[in-house]
Amino acid sequence: MSRIAAFGEVMMRLETPGFQTLSQSGNLAYSFSGSGVNVVSALARFGHEAYLASTLPDNPLGDAALAHLRKLGIQTPFVNRGGRYIGMYFLEHGFGIRPSKVTYTDRLGSSFNTVPNAPGDWERIAAAVDAVHFCGITLAMNELARTQIKQLAREVKSRGGTVIFDCNYRPSLWGEDGYAAAAPHYRDMLELADIVFMNEKDAMLTLGMPSGATDRLAQLQELIPQVAKQYGIAMIAGTHRKVNGDNTHTLAGYLYAEGAFRFAQPSTFSVYDRVGAGDAYASGMIHAWLRGCDPQFAVDYATAAAVLAHTVHGDTPMATEADVVKAMSRAAGDVER
Amino acid sequence: MSRIAAFGEVMMRLETPGFQTLSQSGNLAYSFSGSGVNVVSALARFGHEAYLASTLPDNPLGDAALAHLRKLGIQTPFVNRGGRYIGMYFLEHGFGIRPSKVTYTDRLGSSFNTVPNAPGDWERIAAAVDAVHFCGITLAMNELARTQIKQLAREVKSRGGTVIFDCNYRPSLWGEDGYAAAAPHYRDMLELADIVFMNEKDAMLTLGMPSGATDRLAQLQELIPQVAKQYGIAMIAGTHRKVNGDNTHTLAGYLYAEGAFRFAQPSTFSVYDRVGAGDAYASGMIHAWLRGCDPQFAVDYATAAAVLAHTVHGDTPMATEADVVKAMSRAAGDVER
Amino acid sequence: MSRIAAFGEVMMRLETPGFQTLSQSGNLAYSFSGSGVNVVSALARFGHEAYLASTLPDNPLGDAALAHLRKLGIQTPFVNRGGRYIGMYFLEHGFGIRPSKVTYTDRLGSSFNTVPNAPGDWERIAAAVDAVHFCGITLAMNELARTQIKQLAREVKSRGGTVIFDCNYRPSLWGEDGYAAAAPHYRDMLELADIVFMNEKDAMLTLGMPSGATDRLAQLQELIPQVAKQYGIAMIAGTHRKVNGDNTHTLAGYLYAEGAFRFAQPSTFSVYDRVGAGDAYASGMIHAWLRGCDPQFAVDYATAAAVLAHTVHGDTPMATEADVVKAMSRAAGDVER
Amino acid sequence: MSRIAAFGEVMMRLETPGFQTLSQSGNLAYSFSGSGVNVVSALARFGHEAYLASTLPDNPLGDAALAHLRKLGIQTPFVNRGGRYIGMYFLEHGFGIRPSKVTYTDRLGSSFNTVPNAPGDWERIAAAVDAVHFCGITLAMNELARTQIKQLAREVKSRGGTVIFDCNYRPSLWGEDGYAAAAPHYRDMLELADIVFMNEKDAMLTLGMPSGATDRLAQLQELIPQVAKQYGIAMIAGTHRKVNGDNTHTLAGYLYAEGAFRFAQPSTFSVYDRVGAGDAYASGMIHAWLRGCDPQFAVDYATAAAVLAHTVHGDTPMATEADVVKAMSRAAGDVER
Amino acid sequence: MSRIAAFGEVMMRLETPGFQTLSQSGNLAYSFSGSGVNVVSALARFGHEAYLASTLPDNPLGDAALAHLRKLGIQTPFVNRGGRYIGMYFLEHGFGIRPSKVTYTDRLGSSFNTVPNAPGDWERIAAAVDAVHFCGITLAMNELARTQIKQLAREVKSRGGTVIFDCNYRPSLWGEDGYAAAAPHYRDMLELADIVFMNEKDAMLTLGMPSGATDRLAQLQELIPQVAKQYGIAMIAGTHRKVNGDNTHTLAGYLYAEGAFRFAQPSTFSVYDRVGAGDAYASGMIHAWLRGCDPQFAVDYATAAAVLAHTVHGDTPMATEADVVKAMSRAAGDVER
Amino acid sequence: MSRIAAFGEVMMRLETPGFQTLSQSGNLAYSFSGSGVNVVSALARFGHEAYLASTLPDNPLGDAALAHLRKLGIQTPFVNRGGRYIGMYFLEHGFGIRPSKVTYTDRLGSSFNTVPNAPGDWERIAAAVDAVHFCGITLAMNELARTQIKQLAREVKSRGGTVIFDCNYRPSLWGEDGYAAAAPHYRDMLELADIVFMNEKDAMLTLGMPSGATDRLAQLQELIPQVAKQYGIAMIAGTHRKVNGDNTHTLAGYLYAEGAFRFAQPSTFSVYDRVGAGDAYASGMIHAWLRGCDPQFAVDYATAAAVLAHTVHGDTPMATEADVVKAMSRAAGDVER
Repeated sequence: MSRIAAFGEVMMRLETPGFQTLSQSGNLAYSFSGSGVNVVSALARFGHEAYLASTLPDNPLGDAALAHLRKLGIQTPFVNRGGRYIGMYFLEHGFGIRPSKVTYTDRLGSSFNTVPNAPGDWERIAAAVDAVHFCGITLAMNELARTQIKQLAREVKSRGGTVIFDCNYRPSLWGEDGYAAAAPHYRDMLELADIVFMNEKDAMLTLGMPSGATDRLAQLQELIPQVAKQYGIAMIAGTHRKVNGDNTHTLAGYLYAEGAFRFAQPSTFSVYDRVGAGDAYASGMIHAWLRGCDPQFAVDYATAAAVLAHTVHGDTPMATEADVVKAMSRAAGDVER
Repeated sequence: MSRIAAFGEVMMRLETPGFQTLSQSGNLAYSFSGSGVNVVSALARFGHEAYLASTLPDNPLGDAALAHLRKLGIQTPFVNRGGRYIGMYFLEHGFGIRPSKVTYTDRLGSSFNTVPNAPGDWERIAAAVDAVHFCGITLAMNELARTQIKQLAREVKSRGGTVIFDCNYRPSLWGEDGYAAAAPHYRDMLELADIVFMNEKDAMLTLGMPSGATDRLAQLQELIPQVAKQYGIAMIAGTHRKVNGDNTHTLAGYLYAEGAFRFAQPSTFSVYDRVGAGDAYASGMIHAWLRGCDPQFAVDYATAAAVLAHTVHGDTPMATEADVVKAMSRAAGDVER
Repeated sequence: MSRIAAFGEVMMRLETPGFQTLSQSGNLAYSFSGSGVNVVSALARFGHEAYLASTLPDNPLGDAALAHLRKLGIQTPFVNRGGRYIGMYFLEHGFGIRPSKVTYTDRLGSSFNTVPNAPGDWERIAAAVDAVHFCGITLAMNELARTQIKQLAREVKSRGGTVIFDCNYRPSLWGEDGYAAAAPHYRDMLELADIVFMNEKDAMLTLGMPSGATDRLAQLQELIPQVAKQYGIAMIAGTHRKVNGDNTHTLAGYLYAEGAFRFAQPSTFSVYDRVGAGDAYASGMIHAWLRGCDPQFAVDYATAAAVLAHTVHGDTPMATEADVVKAMSRAAGDVER
Repeated sequence: MSRIAAFGEVMMRLETPGFQTLSQSGNLAYSFSGSGVNVVSALARFGHEAYLASTLPDNPLGDAALAHLRKLGIQTPFVNRGGRYIGMYFLEHGFGIRPSKVTYTDRLGSSFNTVPNAPGDWERIAAAVDAVHFCGITLAMNELARTQIKQLAREVKSRGGTVIFDCNYRPSLWGEDGYAAAAPHYRDMLELADIVFMNEKDAMLTLGMPSGATDRLAQLQELIPQVAKQYGIAMIAGTHRKVNGDNTHTLAGYLYAEGAFRFAQPSTFSVYDRVGAGDAYASGMIHAWLRGCDPQFAVDYATAAAVLAHTVHGDTPMATEADVVKAMSRAAGDVER
Repeated sequence: MSRIAAFGEVMMRLETPGFQTLSQSGNLAYSFSGSGVNVVSALARFGHEAYLASTLPDNPLGDAALAHLRKLGIQTPFVNRGGRYIGMYFLEHGFGIRPSKVTYTDRLGSSFNTVPNAPGDWERIAAAVDAVHFCGITLAMNELARTQIKQLAREVKSRGGTVIFDCNYRPSLWGEDGYAAAAPHYRDMLELADIVFMNEKDAMLTLGMPSGATDRLAQLQELIPQVAKQYGIAMIAGTHRKVNGDNTHTLAGYLYAEGAFRFAQPSTFSVYDRVGAGDAYASGMIHAWLRGCDPQFAVDYATAAAVLAHTVHGDTPMATEADVVKAMSRAAGDVER
Repeated sequence: MSRIAAFGEVMMRLETPGFQTLSQSGNLAYSFSGSGVNVVSALARFGHEAYLASTLPDNPLGDAALAHLRKLGIQTPFVNRGGRYIGMYFLEHGFGIRPSKVTYTDRLGSSFNTVPNAPGDWERIAAAVDAVHFCGITLAMNELARTQIKQLAREVKSRGGTVIFDCNYRPSLWGEDGYAAAAPHYRDMLELADIVFMNEKDAMLTLGMPSGATDRLAQLQELIPQVAKQYGIAMIAGTHRKVNGDNTHTLAGYLYAEGAFRFAQPSTFSVYDRVGAGDAYASGMIHAWLRGCDPQFAVDYATAAAVLAHTVHGDTPMATEADVVKAMSRAAGDVER
């Protein structure tokens, strides 16, 4: 059992039931998630001591979020209370050719993005964990968020802890000329990181690395080793996703470490809830790494964790280690009784 | 932006949740629809000024129906109140091989089918719109409905407006020897109509036109030009639908105008809610025609509108013009955020 | 254990959740009830063999109604299938000063009101039961219903069975000059009946009996003995209800038999669901009579049954004999565990 | 039938079901309201032509809000689209001694509070209506809102229209030293207004008027005539509310016009949903004034409208004129069928 | 119409909505089922007089179960009341690769498994029916259950009735060395049975019969005739099921009687609710046998009944004979109206 | 902030929605509670470090219970996993005169009542907390439960911790001659306890102490000081409850410490959910004691906490210290915004 923290925003997810639009329905189910929440919750379920470092408003919405985090098995001593708002997004589930739609409220005014951490917070967190997870979504927020990410990453690194960074570039958050705006911050994070989640698009678009290849896989195999070398990253991993026309997706995971690639068998599967599946992949990979597993096992485990996450309601993975191992070895099973 | 009205009955749709039967469940969701409702609501969403001409009872069910029409974006100055009942149908959703089932209450006693419009109504409606939509379901009701359809159609035609007629022959509504009973009324409507929705079955069964061909497509190509010529119809359009065994349908749309056929690429897609998809096809075609679009674009747009309507809860299409255009150009997309 | 049948229509009750109006909500809960359904279901729960004689359409709504009747413990060999429709009513629950509202669909077209019973049905029913229950609501329907009520009542009476009639005059069903239209039919039923539920209003308004008294109780005590004598009725019973401003009602029950009145202590109680409480009173009285109970016990038992029916969701009473006896002896209790 | 507009923000109300807290539940029902929405929706139901002037974001939440406004019977040509967010509040229903709790999201970033109206909007609105309604909540927002309120009020006044202002001072919106900050703006509005909703607290706290009386009623009778005289207001009206311990409230309405007070009989009633009841009172008073009703009828009608609003789910009154008139004349009624 | 009883436990099924886990949800839908319940309910729907022999606790859960059985069309005079508990299972629906999970409460303490039937019960049941159905699940319970099964089977057999036994071996119920423990009881039942449901696995694992074949179909064709011969069984039937990766299953039914095999065309279909489909197959086969149908029709009918059962919510089949016959003849249909 | 543990069973509460019976409904809401759960959850909300010592099955129901405990703010390192079942109870909410009904499943087979704690558990728990809470319900279970209660109580006492015991005698759990069976165990617990919750009935019935008084209050004042003296108990507290006929209860709390009684003003209030209110009283008293509050404040605080618990859904109190303090000072408030 390792100790790991994520630093990131807690988002309130509000979704219409079934496949209704916001104009059709009058009801919402809500839960609380976020990239960091999803990753450490999955790791708690895999048996680790998992913390979230974040800030929530001191009102009934913040109380509900905190209760939800505890329910997910996350330790909350590093969740501060202050500010006035929590980030929210509304989700309308698509069907077949009709895509799902996400509508955000104002994230920049949230407690997480407006209330700075107190002096000493970084030291306390870094002292308590072996590794810390960051995500490109937080990096896209504002200067406060960017500054705090880097402060905490440096503190953890300076104490010998592992820094994990998921590039997770969201075009809508960086706006026009976003790649240029994002590049210096992504470079800072890559310098600090030991484990990185990305694929060839991040290398080409955000880091501006040229590729002579035209096919995605060839680009990946050309560029990822360069990134690893240039920034001194121990492990880089990621996925290629294909959205098929019949409510199925195809996912192909990879892992690059110690100069070699490992690939999982691409998997095609029915999708029930797509949001958060990338975090499940990351959590599977981190778990395998924390346990010192064989690289091929790691990429297979992470892929199975990601596939399972598509079959579960909500952003946050719910699979145990036993569930993932079972999913690695077979296609589908009858009722378990 | 054009001005268009539909003349037709507002039906209350009551459906059991999920895939339960009426004997299993104790709950119903209700909404209000109807062929005319669906067509003009879709056209309102595509940016037109859309009216419904109908009659609703002056009781809480009529109030609820009227509120629902307004919510759908339909203008309601031509909705009269009077009579005592609203038509209803109960829907049990099928799954896979198990078909959906519709159970009607007594439609013939509804306000729409028992209360005649007031003198001057036809003139007011015809003066307010550029086009009017009718449907074969209304024609099947009773003499009052049939008389009123023709009165309004003549009034619109006499003022230079466009008359649109969707054949939509429902065997259960016309009873035994239904084709013979229906034929004179269908012929009357075809005489009045500028735009008609039908396929080869309407020509053969209702109009009694013989065909030497055995294959549906050949029959269509033989008979539709004859219908257009005989009745002086500017545009005829329709679809061929195939119900597959795995919760998918295949839809092939066509358009015949100015002596030429245009066909959309047949589309196979997962079906969430099949009711009302034919109205979505009609609304897409009418929209393209009102906008003066290219015929190939028209049939592709109408097909995409119909496909999207299968992915949305309820009888009434919810897609905007942007949604349809996006659906024309690709198979399926990831979450939009 | 006695054997009793009710002859009456099965109604589908469709109600909005909580206190929403039909314009606000989009959901309904449905169940199946009717005066006869309520009475015999309560009697089944009190330990009797209880039958319903009625007609339901041969479609999924009729199937659902039949399943519901069986669930309520009612024997259904005398429920015929035929015709096309089931009577329905929509219920919007009021709150405090805002009254509940009931909106009917067309009852006159229902299977019960359009499909005559087959020859031999009356004999089979009369042979199977000791008593039969009728209600003034059925009498208000149409000539078919009125004819059939009287046929069955005569058949039961001719075989020595007991005829029970609940006056239950509904002004909206008889229309203008309703009392005059109703009077001959009510007189016919009173001639046939052994047990009657009514109060002084029925005597004055429907039967046109004059009273010198001005106070309700005095009118009751003057007129009911006259009715009993004139029509040769063994037992007459009924209630006075007062609707208070704070979601409570006050109910005072009476019983007149063998020349003497018995009164229950008036009871004031919170009301959860008022519909069907009159049927609960009738069922309590019939049960006490079938068991040969003391008249004071009878009126107290019937009142407690009626009070309990106001605390239960739905039209149909759910109390067992033990529940009613417990309710007779105390005001309110803590959780039973 | 008069024509009236309200200028104000549309809020999304999100409420947990039953009496659950946000920490207990995972579900929300949502609707759209606002002081102006409530007032003009009620007036539409009373038979007037009712408009809302507001701004909504151009996203699925704005679409849903607009559909909801139309459903309520509100005309929406003066609802602009722009900006990014809609104001929201979360409602946890209290029970008995436990108060209801409202938690807001960031209203100041909403489309209404950030996107200025276009040149010509005020003229178009003022030309279309006889009266316009404003509320102190909008005045509390920011300089943009305050500027726009006054611009529109002046435009309406300059064309001879009626300006209605509901003081509705919310301490939490004005913050510390709020009364001092609010005073100049309230004085500006009182100068412009013809009809004002307020009571003695507004006079004493916001306007800083001293009173020699100690009892609320005496203070009211001393100060309201002074306000009317000083600002040249034709009619001032308002209520005194008392929250009782048993889920009931007591409401006493008054009206001051033409130098005389009229008082409604104080009413005590069970409360189902308290939010928006003040708007119902205002709408009742405005309706009576638009119809030229007798002052005593006006205050009784407005009180009945307010009482009914406490019995209906949601912020927005649902009563028709007939419902209110019926409620004026009696305490409580049995089921209406 | 034949008369048939099943002897077996009534289980309460409690399931989370949609695809949520018990840790995610806070809501459950409940119903009552059991192998015998499912079989006789289906047979009631096919037109037979169907009884359940079982024992339920005399508390509100037992009342609810009994009401549910009646609703399903099952006759309940042989359902005793006594003991304290009802067996329960919690069902979490899987999706795609994630399997459904069943969690039981303590079945051994249930009324059915602790309260012996009264003397004379077997005689009364055997006298009332033509056939009786038993299931291997009951055989797995305890000595009481096993003793009672055999007593009733002997009583029915001795009166010339038909004994039906569904092997339905559940490994988790028999524990370690379960096959050895089960074998003598299975042999006892096979000696008593006229109709048996099983496949080659039961023959090999439970009965310990060796097979030289390696392929399932060959094993079946080798062993089933041996079983029929050895135990003198008139008809043996069963299915092979394959769980595919895309929410579909493939089912292949067989029937062995009078020395010959009949096979249904294997069917692949989307699965909505898998539990109870084996009972639907059994009920279809029993129905065909009771009606004296042709063997090929029997296996086709049973297969169609099983396929339909996968498309219906709940354990208990809901199809009528007409539904099954329609499903035999086509793949999928459009809406039925 | 103090550290406190409760030792007790976690129960699954399954309740029908609204006021439906189990025979009427098909849905249940579930949550997890228990006397110890309720007390320590409330104390966590009041700011203490709160633990539960219990045992849960290692299956999805146990997982869900554990997640629920964490959500309530309870620390779970002393919750063991093992055994097979969780105790359950079904709750049907009564209304007015109709009492709520609780139906249990077999508690004695639950993990808590069948799996003994491991050696060292008592020491670990006792070392971690300042006080431990026990309840008479656990004492009623079986020898294992009784033995373990006493072991843990002795361990805590021996280390100087505080032992709290809530008598909570449930007649249905102890059966016939229950008082005699319970007496020795209650005496053992009173010997060990520092703080006891009880009233005069426990003294008279369980402890068999005679009283010369006839009135409850006089009996209390006579007997409680004797109990305190005889068993050396520092503080005894409890309540008298009266169930009124109109959905209200009246509660009168008392406290006896240092030779003196303190009484809270009796409080009458509307009841939303009665279960668990006694635990809220206990938690309020323990909190006041842990904080060293004045005795009169303690009894007022505990009473307000209990009253608030009647207004909240579920067994477990949800009030914060601020909520309770606010409830102490006023009757009812308007919406808080």
